[in-house]
Amino acid sequence: MIYLDNAATTLHKPQCVIDAVVCALNSMGNASRGANDCALQASRIIYDTREKLAEFFGCSRPDHVVFTANSTEALNIALSGVFHPGDHVITTDCEHNSVLRPLYRQQEEGTISLSFVPADPMGRVNYNDFESLIQPNTRAIVCTHASNLTGNVIDVARVGKIARRYNLLLIVDASQTAGVIPIDMEAMNIDILCFTGHKGLMAPQGTGGMCIREGVEIRPFKVGGSGVHSYDHHQPQPYPTRLEAGTLNGHGIAGLHAAMEYLEQVGIDTIHQKEMALMTKFYEAVRTIPGVTVYGDFDSPRTAVVTLNIDQEDSAAVSDALMEDYQIATRAGAHCAPRMHQALGTVEQGAVRFSFSWFNTEEEVEAAIRAIRELAE
Amino acid sequence: MIYLDNAATTLHKPQCVIDAVVCALNSMGNASRGANDCALQASRIIYDTREKLAEFFGCSRPDHVVFTANSTEALNIALSGVFHPGDHVITTDCEHNSVLRPLYRQQEEGTISLSFVPADPMGRVNYNDFESLIQPNTRAIVCTHASNLTGNVIDVARVGKIARRYNLLLIVDASQTAGVIPIDMEAMNIDILCFTGHKGLMAPQGTGGMCIREGVEIRPFKVGGSGVHSYDHHQPQPYPTRLEAGTLNGHGIAGLHAAMEYLEQVGIDTIHQKEMALMTKFYEAVRTIPGVTVYGDFDSPRTAVVTLNIDQEDSAAVSDALMEDYQIATRAGAHCAPRMHQALGTVEQGAVRFSFSWFNTEEEVEAAIRAIRELAE
Repeated sequence: MIYLDNAATTLHKPQCVIDAVVCALNSMGNASRGANDCALQASRIIYDTREKLAEFFGCSRPDHVVFTANSTEALNIALSGVFHPGDHVITTDCEHNSVLRPLYRQQEEGTISLSFVPADPMGRVNYNDFESLIQPNTRAIVCTHASNLTGNVIDVARVGKIARRYNLLLIVDASQTAGVIPIDMEAMNIDILCFTGHKGLMAPQGTGGMCIREGVEIRPFKVGGSGVHSYDHHQPQPYPTRLEAGTLNGHGIAGLHAAMEYLEQVGIDTIHQKEMALMTKFYEAVRTIPGVTVYGDFDSPRTAVVTLNIDQEDSAAVSDALMEDYQIATRAGAHCAPRMHQALGTVEQGAVRFSFSWFNTEEEVEAAIRAIRELAE
Repeated sequence: MIYLDNAATTLHKPQCVIDAVVCALNSMGNASRGANDCALQASRIIYDTREKLAEFFGCSRPDHVVFTANSTEALNIALSGVFHPGDHVITTDCEHNSVLRPLYRQQEEGTISLSFVPADPMGRVNYNDFESLIQPNTRAIVCTHASNLTGNVIDVARVGKIARRYNLLLIVDASQTAGVIPIDMEAMNIDILCFTGHKGLMAPQGTGGMCIREGVEIRPFKVGGSGVHSYDHHQPQPYPTRLEAGTLNGHGIAGLHAAMEYLEQVGIDTIHQKEMALMTKFYEAVRTIPGVTVYGDFDSPRTAVVTLNIDQEDSAAVSDALMEDYQIATRAGAHCAPRMHQALGTVEQGAVRFSFSWFNTEEEVEAAIRAIRELAE
């Protein structure tokens, strides 16, 4: 099988990640619960992973790296923990439901009001819109780093400059970019960065987290056992404990730890270049096939995603044919990005997404090109 | 090292669990995200795990089995998702902070009022208190199945009869019992059962969940990507999607799946008998050592936990000595169970907990007995 659904989850994990999970499953206690050797070993590897992530993302405080089950949880914690009644929030048409639904919920509850930076039919935003939507009560900009549907990257550093100028919080969904495109919270003026482990970071599912700039206050989301201050009625205030009730996924985090080492060794620029070469080869070939419509902006920075349709064919039917007749795994349908589909005009048809990873090959790309050519005929 | 901290997390996982995680790390796509073979394989193993858990816990609907990162998350979802302003809730002194803190939070927010069934100095509850605390606005009883500190089991079936008679919800924290003591939601009248994977179920960290009786309504906690109904502003209503935003920990759940098969094969009665034999051997030996105080009720059903102190010695010092001088891993301190310590009179001293698992041996118990005897001298 040729797996080209890496924007949903990277199927292939480096062997060192698998080895680290196995090692943890054989030896790891419960971090922060007790001081026996197994518990301390778990605490050490978890803290070391915080340090690696902090350095990787330019977060000044390793203890402000909070682990979650995935980026959806990180976004829920961030978006339900920072706003106050009356706040206005700016976000974009490019967002995934993991951003949209937490925001809609607070809009419906009457806590916040929302404005959307529109996307054009190529999925692009106009950076002036971020500024023109600012109101006196605007508190934050919430923005994906790259669309999961088009692969278009938003220039977060540019958005960060606007956020800083108007003293707004910048909350970034890095689900599609962490591990693939460099992120520096300090340089980009990001206040809260939410990421997942199982995509570009090539770590196990069930891992992810958020990096919080020093001084940014987020209210607890889950509360419960913390291993410290057991007699308080409240979750302890210091990060990361404030946002990490319950036993962490230590086994998964051990895998994330190994994944971070792997990324350090290989270098994410090397990874991104290879992914982009595969993506470009595919894009250049399929864009000229009669009947094929490719979505997104290929003249600006992007991730290794090519999303397309063939004539008016239902995207699920195309994706199914790719799987059944060519053993090529893609994703079709709505991609949890409703406003993006509205911008692209693909609400009814959906779209077929090809997403490439470090572990794909040129031969796989060539097979995918042949398949699209045949299906389009 | 002799690992006797299994109530915090079971260190030793069955080999089939490790193998299943490795297999998943090599082959698993993103469940419910697309229809390619890898995604479908993930969906199948996850649904099959729901079925196994539903059968194991006597939950009539596999689609009412919701996966979470741990029991703390399950309890947060349950306890923040069922109450309405003005509700009165009965809970017990035996609870862990994963129950207490979500309840305290809602008490402080003015949503609910709380009453506690007291525990006596042996950590026992009086079942009549559940009934005598009921008020006209009582909505639920929230109750642990077994204390993480004393190992005392609460007769949930008996509490369930009271809950049913007064039409109250019964929400049970099975963190210490799932996989060790039989649970039948139907027979015990449990409405919401919260469990973790990494303790008695011998599954990876980062797994856990809740089983919901048909007809019980819980509001969404996290919201976001669901893979279905992408154009709705709200999280989809059907369980389990209602409570499962974001990518599940498929790799961990694959391990949980294997763990459920292991438990089926070995039989949890067999496991419990062995654990209880180890625990009893330890208890009978240490209880007679001068200076040793053992906490809890050993004349009623219980888990394989023995918690003790030596004279007035600080529990952390004893636990450290066990680790350093005898390579025995235990847990000391407050155990996230503040009201239980108050009942036992161990707020200052804490207590040293020995918790036994299926993978411990008689020789390990004998070494632990020798260690306590020497430390007490």
